[in-house]
Amino acid sequence: MSENKQNNQKKQKQKQKQNHNTKKQRRKKAGTQKTKQQSKVTFSADKLTEFSIWYENILEYADIVDKRYPIKGMPVFKPYGCFMQTKTMDLIEKEWESQDIDRVKFPTMIPETFLNKEQDHIKGFGSQCFWVTHGGLDELNVRLALRPTSETAMYSMFSLWIRSHNDLPLRVYQTCDVFRYETKQTRPLIRVREIPFNEVHTVHSSVEDALQNLEDAWKGYYKVINDQLGIYGLRLRRPDWDKFAGAEHTDVLDSVMPSGKVLQAVGAHYLGQKFAKPFDIKFTNKDMKEELGYMTCYGVSSRLLATVIGVHGDNKGLNLPSTVARYHVVIVPILARKSKVPHEDLLSKAEELSKTLQSAGIRCKIDNRQLRPGEKYYFWEMKGVPIRLELGQYDYQKNEVRRVLRINSEKVQHPLDNIVELLQKDLKFVDETLNKRALEFHNSRVTNCSTIEEMQEAIKKGGFARIPYYSVGMDGKEGDKKVHELTGGEVRGTLVGEEPPEEGTLCLITNKPAKVYAYVARSY
Amino acid sequence: MSENKQNNQKKQKQKQKQNHNTKKQRRKKAGTQKTKQQSKVTFSADKLTEFSIWYENILEYADIVDKRYPIKGMPVFKPYGCFMQTKTMDLIEKEWESQDIDRVKFPTMIPETFLNKEQDHIKGFGSQCFWVTHGGLDELNVRLALRPTSETAMYSMFSLWIRSHNDLPLRVYQTCDVFRYETKQTRPLIRVREIPFNEVHTVHSSVEDALQNLEDAWKGYYKVINDQLGIYGLRLRRPDWDKFAGAEHTDVLDSVMPSGKVLQAVGAHYLGQKFAKPFDIKFTNKDMKEELGYMTCYGVSSRLLATVIGVHGDNKGLNLPSTVARYHVVIVPILARKSKVPHEDLLSKAEELSKTLQSAGIRCKIDNRQLRPGEKYYFWEMKGVPIRLELGQYDYQKNEVRRVLRINSEKVQHPLDNIVELLQKDLKFVDETLNKRALEFHNSRVTNCSTIEEMQEAIKKGGFARIPYYSVGMDGKEGDKKVHELTGGEVRGTLVGEEPPEEGTLCLITNKPAKVYAYVARSY
Repeated sequence: MSENKQNNQKKQKQKQKQNHNTKKQRRKKAGTQKTKQQSKVTFSADKLTEFSIWYENILEYADIVDKRYPIKGMPVFKPYGCFMQTKTMDLIEKEWESQDIDRVKFPTMIPETFLNKEQDHIKGFGSQCFWVTHGGLDELNVRLALRPTSETAMYSMFSLWIRSHNDLPLRVYQTCDVFRYETKQTRPLIRVREIPFNEVHTVHSSVEDALQNLEDAWKGYYKVINDQLGIYGLRLRRPDWDKFAGAEHTDVLDSVMPSGKVLQAVGAHYLGQKFAKPFDIKFTNKDMKEELGYMTCYGVSSRLLATVIGVHGDNKGLNLPSTVARYHVVIVPILARKSKVPHEDLLSKAEELSKTLQSAGIRCKIDNRQLRPGEKYYFWEMKGVPIRLELGQYDYQKNEVRRVLRINSEKVQHPLDNIVELLQKDLKFVDETLNKRALEFHNSRVTNCSTIEEMQEAIKKGGFARIPYYSVGMDGKEGDKKVHELTGGEVRGTLVGEEPPEEGTLCLITNKPAKVYAYVARSY
Repeated sequence: MSENKQNNQKKQKQKQKQNHNTKKQRRKKAGTQKTKQQSKVTFSADKLTEFSIWYENILEYADIVDKRYPIKGMPVFKPYGCFMQTKTMDLIEKEWESQDIDRVKFPTMIPETFLNKEQDHIKGFGSQCFWVTHGGLDELNVRLALRPTSETAMYSMFSLWIRSHNDLPLRVYQTCDVFRYETKQTRPLIRVREIPFNEVHTVHSSVEDALQNLEDAWKGYYKVINDQLGIYGLRLRRPDWDKFAGAEHTDVLDSVMPSGKVLQAVGAHYLGQKFAKPFDIKFTNKDMKEELGYMTCYGVSSRLLATVIGVHGDNKGLNLPSTVARYHVVIVPILARKSKVPHEDLLSKAEELSKTLQSAGIRCKIDNRQLRPGEKYYFWEMKGVPIRLELGQYDYQKNEVRRVLRINSEKVQHPLDNIVELLQKDLKFVDETLNKRALEFHNSRVTNCSTIEEMQEAIKKGGFARIPYYSVGMDGKEGDKKVHELTGGEVRGTLVGEEPPEEGTLCLITNKPAKVYAYVARSY
């Protein structure tokens, strides 16, 4: 071998090594690490300490969204993620239908003239709209906004639909996308420019009816969010300086994410007559007098799914409650090289099992890819499938299956004779366990604070700091700046239904008399 | 009575009469007539001879859409119509899911640069787009189109998702809205500017797979459209001059509407490699060589619902198959003034009955408005509810209910003991009858023509004229102009699977040798 050739080879090797190092470094940065087997990806990002990386990774690896669509903040929902997003909205829709709220479908675009009708509203949303200015080659006479929310679209029609108190209450919902020209950093499901949205809008003949309707709405949200999705949060009434644009008051569900920052998962607004007036939503009341309607609106977005992903997941990946899981069960046939049971028998047994489960409403997938079982296990754990069923030769012979739970890796043998019943029980256990863990996590992230140091410590730990505070009216806005300086967080509001502090309690921030307990947190 | 007073009264009466006449005239023009009872509206528009008026009326009276939204061609779906539209799409979605086609969700906007990638496509759609040019106060660098259809949005991502033949077939669907800046006259559900849409897009590793996939798609469409919605049409292959922009060939389902004009209810396209090339959708085939994917796409819109409404309806109003009906059954308690059975007993029996039906999956509504029974009957007939149940005192005493079918006014007594079973049978009969009628109507509207006069007569009667024709290649376009002059219609295509004419047959239009049978019709 000539010296020249030898040198070349050395250089090549060095170059390869450099490449390798760079790739390794890049992976570390991205929070992942490829092991020897090409196809096995494990997370090196820890969910609690590096949540942001964990979150971005899981969205990519589990095929939830693809961020590479060429418009900023508008990722594509891939099949696996689309299923979960659709299911989440389905749960909400079913709840509204059980409450006799009717589905409607309004146009995506709103004429600028309509958007401008309510002053606070346009102040809040005007600068966030995408504007359609041309149709084909024509310039439009009036610019059209892609709805940033649907109040102004709907309310222009409500005024045509409502004549008398007999037409009330009017309660409609729609599942649609809303659009915001976000200038802040976008983050899939959490802060996007096209937002999957479910919104309810109602008109009532009295304040009492409207407020009662909001309570019913909250019951529905708790049912879906706590009971069905297994996540928790605080129902806070936002400070006056942080209300929905055009609302009399705004209640939200703020959920603590593993990062310690809170995410608003629900927004529910009492609009009073603020929109009824500019949109001329009048009814003839029982005394035959004209009166303006009393209105409410409330909605949830893809943030609900973000919370499900964030709260239930762990360092292996997703952890899905049965309500939104694309598959409840993955069946992995173990096709050993020297199997005493022919592979085709194992595979047809798997097929048979799958059909049994499907017809019982258990969503099921057989993984017969040409990969080693261990790789499949890692893969489906990452995807958060609640139950894995391993079907090997000995299981086959005993007419059993090996059942492994995603939440705790518990392994047992399940006889196939009453497999549906056993798996339904398993799924119930999974949902209950995730629910319990989430509630424990939530409770551990609400800290009662009586000193500034405690507050700072609580915010550092993550979640809410509960502090005595002087006011959440506009006069309290000044204190919020101080809160931000001290913690990086903000006053998120007061807990709905909570008693005020005892007389003589002083505001932690200003030393003025404290009128409320405020909940402070950093937020998305 | 003074003369003056008398005169005044006369004048008032005259004025009232004038008003009355004017109102009457206006109603006649709008195709409706109010009878003595204020609330009873009957159609004076005949469905077959004045379909256009009938259609617009029924959309309004039955609360399907509200056209008064302030943007042209963008009506609001009201609850009753939204339910039907949603159900129609649900049927299609369920079919795709049974075919293992995955749901995805792509952004609404497409950068202009992407839309421009396929030349025929942009020629076809470029002038029809709504353009977003501003986000907030910023002018965007690249204009964004509201998707006129989703090929260019999806295919930019497909190229990232596909590497090898193992990734194929890729088959995804979405239910979304597409947007077209229509300059022609708009008509709700049929020609609108925001179109409710369900679309499938697929990539395959061979021509055969792609074409087979289209056949599977048609099986799915027939199942939903023929079997579940009870409507019919011809699967025509469009002439080359009338293909989807960017397709190798386009098959459609053209349905005859009561007006005699045909409506394209399905479009299914073989794209070959025409999009794969500009969007770089390549895969490594089994011989480890790179190859461009073979693609198909197909979709349906709210036109499907328009066909259901148009074909099944009659002069009393809607006539709905059970698959899309908001209510299967309306219960009308007959609260006679001298009823031997207390009203509250009748009402609670109705409640009980309603619950029984609901829990058996029969969608049910109790009408206890303060109106006379006859008015309620007219109302729900107009709304197309398949079954009416009247519950009067004598029915109550015999533990029965009077059942009336919307399709034929047939009245029988149903014992309440096995009411669910009986109604399920009724609903099946309703669906079968509507289906049979629709098929008969369809068959009566396809006319075999061997002279120009016959063709003209057939088009005048409505539906398709089948004629021997020289070519549906680009060389046949000239003849289409002649067809239009002669009939007001156009060559809609050839029937897929039909044998060509016998040798020696001459084209009805040009006297050249006829290569195909062409189907001529006027269209929406």
